[in-house]
Amino acid sequence: MSKTPKVTIIGAGISGLKAAHTLLQDPNIKPEEVIIIEAQDHIGGRLKTTEESQSKLGIRYDLGASWFHDSLNNSTLNYLIENNRIDLGKDVYYDDKDVQVYSSDGYLDSGDLKLNRVLEDIEKYIELYFHEDIDKEDISCIEIVDKFLEKYDPLLTDEQKKYCGRMMRYLELWFGISNDISSGKFAVMDHQGRNLLNKKGYYYLVDVLANEIPKSSILLNEPVKTIYRQNNNKKICVETKNGLKVYSEYLIVTAPLSILQLDQNHEYGIKWEPPLSEKIQKSLKTMHFGALGKVVLEFDNIWWDKNQDRFQIIADQVSTDNLSKPLKSLPASFTYPVYCVNFACVHPNKKGGSLVFLIQSPLTEYLESHPEEVWKYYKPMLEKMPITPITDPINIIVTDWTLNPYIRGAYSAMHVGDDANDLIITLSGEFENCGISEKNIRFAGEHTVADGAGCVHGAYNSGEREAKWILNDLNQK
Amino acid sequence: MSKTPKVTIIGAGISGLKAAHTLLQDPNIKPEEVIIIEAQDHIGGRLKTTEESQSKLGIRYDLGASWFHDSLNNSTLNYLIENNRIDLGKDVYYDDKDVQVYSSDGYLDSGDLKLNRVLEDIEKYIELYFHEDIDKEDISCIEIVDKFLEKYDPLLTDEQKKYCGRMMRYLELWFGISNDISSGKFAVMDHQGRNLLNKKGYYYLVDVLANEIPKSSILLNEPVKTIYRQNNNKKICVETKNGLKVYSEYLIVTAPLSILQLDQNHEYGIKWEPPLSEKIQKSLKTMHFGALGKVVLEFDNIWWDKNQDRFQIIADQVSTDNLSKPLKSLPASFTYPVYCVNFACVHPNKKGGSLVFLIQSPLTEYLESHPEEVWKYYKPMLEKMPITPITDPINIIVTDWTLNPYIRGAYSAMHVGDDANDLIITLSGEFENCGISEKNIRFAGEHTVADGAGCVHGAYNSGEREAKWILNDLNQK
Repeated sequence: MSKTPKVTIIGAGISGLKAAHTLLQDPNIKPEEVIIIEAQDHIGGRLKTTEESQSKLGIRYDLGASWFHDSLNNSTLNYLIENNRIDLGKDVYYDDKDVQVYSSDGYLDSGDLKLNRVLEDIEKYIELYFHEDIDKEDISCIEIVDKFLEKYDPLLTDEQKKYCGRMMRYLELWFGISNDISSGKFAVMDHQGRNLLNKKGYYYLVDVLANEIPKSSILLNEPVKTIYRQNNNKKICVETKNGLKVYSEYLIVTAPLSILQLDQNHEYGIKWEPPLSEKIQKSLKTMHFGALGKVVLEFDNIWWDKNQDRFQIIADQVSTDNLSKPLKSLPASFTYPVYCVNFACVHPNKKGGSLVFLIQSPLTEYLESHPEEVWKYYKPMLEKMPITPITDPINIIVTDWTLNPYIRGAYSAMHVGDDANDLIITLSGEFENCGISEKNIRFAGEHTVADGAGCVHGAYNSGEREAKWILNDLNQK
Repeated sequence: MSKTPKVTIIGAGISGLKAAHTLLQDPNIKPEEVIIIEAQDHIGGRLKTTEESQSKLGIRYDLGASWFHDSLNNSTLNYLIENNRIDLGKDVYYDDKDVQVYSSDGYLDSGDLKLNRVLEDIEKYIELYFHEDIDKEDISCIEIVDKFLEKYDPLLTDEQKKYCGRMMRYLELWFGISNDISSGKFAVMDHQGRNLLNKKGYYYLVDVLANEIPKSSILLNEPVKTIYRQNNNKKICVETKNGLKVYSEYLIVTAPLSILQLDQNHEYGIKWEPPLSEKIQKSLKTMHFGALGKVVLEFDNIWWDKNQDRFQIIADQVSTDNLSKPLKSLPASFTYPVYCVNFACVHPNKKGGSLVFLIQSPLTEYLESHPEEVWKYYKPMLEKMPITPITDPINIIVTDWTLNPYIRGAYSAMHVGDDANDLIITLSGEFENCGISEKNIRFAGEHTVADGAGCVHGAYNSGEREAKWILNDLNQK
């Protein structure tokens, strides 16, 4: 079987959908001229909202991305607003009251102890440290934080010395990797506005885009096996495991970085014929892939402070030597920091309430493989925060991103020494000697953008960017 | 009478003292080769620490600058640390616990209402707004805040809409001018670290520097009348009101911007012979001079929450038409926002306690001229915050910066449309067509720096910068 659209898009995640959506809005593109090839049996990629039936409380949870980050300047949020597709009074929630902090010692009054002021100083210190010299050697988040604590020791209180380094491990729940391996150089993020929880669920944005793409244009259950770049008819040929061949003038590859990084003979890898240049293959290895997962615990009563948006349970002062090593058994509680969103605040009118935990690698891999151990792991930590007697959960939902062979984690993450810019510039193909020699093969996805990297709106922007490149190229012909 | 040093410095404020200090540390400069001419009867300029005898509690207050701003990167703090001249456990205090906020409605739970999150968003919005286009027309702080509130109205709670705009007027207590005239473009400051209160008092830094300058090199009570730039002997001649003439090869002018801006025939103005170029005269008018003042109220008992570092009493929603106009009578309470440091936290072991208020123009001018009305003004606002019955102060100290003809305010402030960079570049003389044609005439002071503008360390750096320029110039000869 074969097809011959004008544009083939690999991946029906947000970047692929937005690319198709943008192309199809152009009056010169006919519906049948765009085809999306998706490996899985559903669209949305790393956006996934649970069904109401999976919850005992009737709540839909986003197991992948769940916030509109950079909400002052978020293209997906703006798109929904401009098209009257969102009720800002009902569909979103700023869950950003100051985080309530606990440690194994119990409640920590971070306001009174001015812990956040020190965290702000640590971030400013990191910025100044690496700003001094653009070639300054990267060190891990753990190391740069230790440098700060040593240098400013005489200006810190005993509590600040004790807790602030451990509190800085909150970054692990942004990047999905532990602080011993994550890049200090890229630890400080510049946000363009608050994080706005997408209370309605990201499935909705996926639906809004997909509804403007003909169903027949999205081919599900078609994992790509080979991309043939040189054919007699000068078309690109994408061949799937099922033997489907799609020939097109343009190709947008939105497969996750985790797939692009696989050996070409790997069962889930994509084979390039001829192989990608050394330069591109090398640059694909200049960034890693993190594993941010989630655990949802539902309870039939709210035993925690229901007015707090977020809880942080900081880790004990542990040896950082093995933090990032794969876990063979359940780690001790208080080894990894816990970050938790209180959904009793997000959905205040339910009977009962739920807590949504973010988890970082290597804990994500372990808990996703051993969901039956989840409560055993969290219970001793949560016992620090009840205001009425703690009860067992009535329902547990755990993500499976690391088990999903087409995803293999969460999103790009910077290890010490990584440099995202190298990959972004190389894949963009906008500069001489960069990109594929065939400029009609394009890349999109969260790993191909600097603004909004790792975010829904970043991926969305990259899809739009590549669609516009193609439209412009067609226009010039 | 005449003198002939190698370098003359006008002004014994922190920039002039640091310039002299730097010059005198060079082995090639002899003590008698540097002379500082100071108009007032004391050194320190806009640094002024009260005597213990002025207080009923035995506290010394800084009536001018009182913080080490940018404390991660503050040259004066670093100087004191490196020379073992400061006890970090005793001489400084981070007074930066979250500000306790009150309005005429009473206590405002800014944490619970997430008001600070919105303030952060407003500042980010301002940054993005002006970043979009470098030539974007400046508007006032009031206007840019209103723009935000209008644009993001659907995402704000009723309380946020009601209070956040008014809370943003805290900026008036940074700049010393009201938000209706202050520049939106330059409203957002980038801080390099927390603000660290100089608990010991800035007199000490002044003393440390002055102690390394011969007493005979600092001529007090010598207001400068004329600067003669062309003489037969090619020396610069500075003539004071008392008829003293100082001839030198180099001159560093550290007089405040408020003095430089005066008409040359003004009683307190400095006359230039020949006059300064049109370009420089024009650039002196591209920045204004603010009037940040202070009021100290001492009480024999602490009727407020003694554990809070700072209090903010926000203004009512008032018409902003006349905010910046000179006041002919005491304004109604709640017209201007109040910012107050709780010295009961800074000096916890006193009998009684004190509150130190910052005041902005035009209130500064009014209260400095009418100190007897201070308590009448503050009492109705402070009545919102007592936890035990409020009592009258036992002592009131009010600054007199706006009454002092040699100071005339506080420090540089950006009105709408101002551009500090123009003045800084023009005065620096480092570029063609900039500076005075005689490059041996230099400028220093808080108005001549971009980093640390308006701050002690900025002024200090500028003095060091000009001393080094001269040493380098001498070296090349």
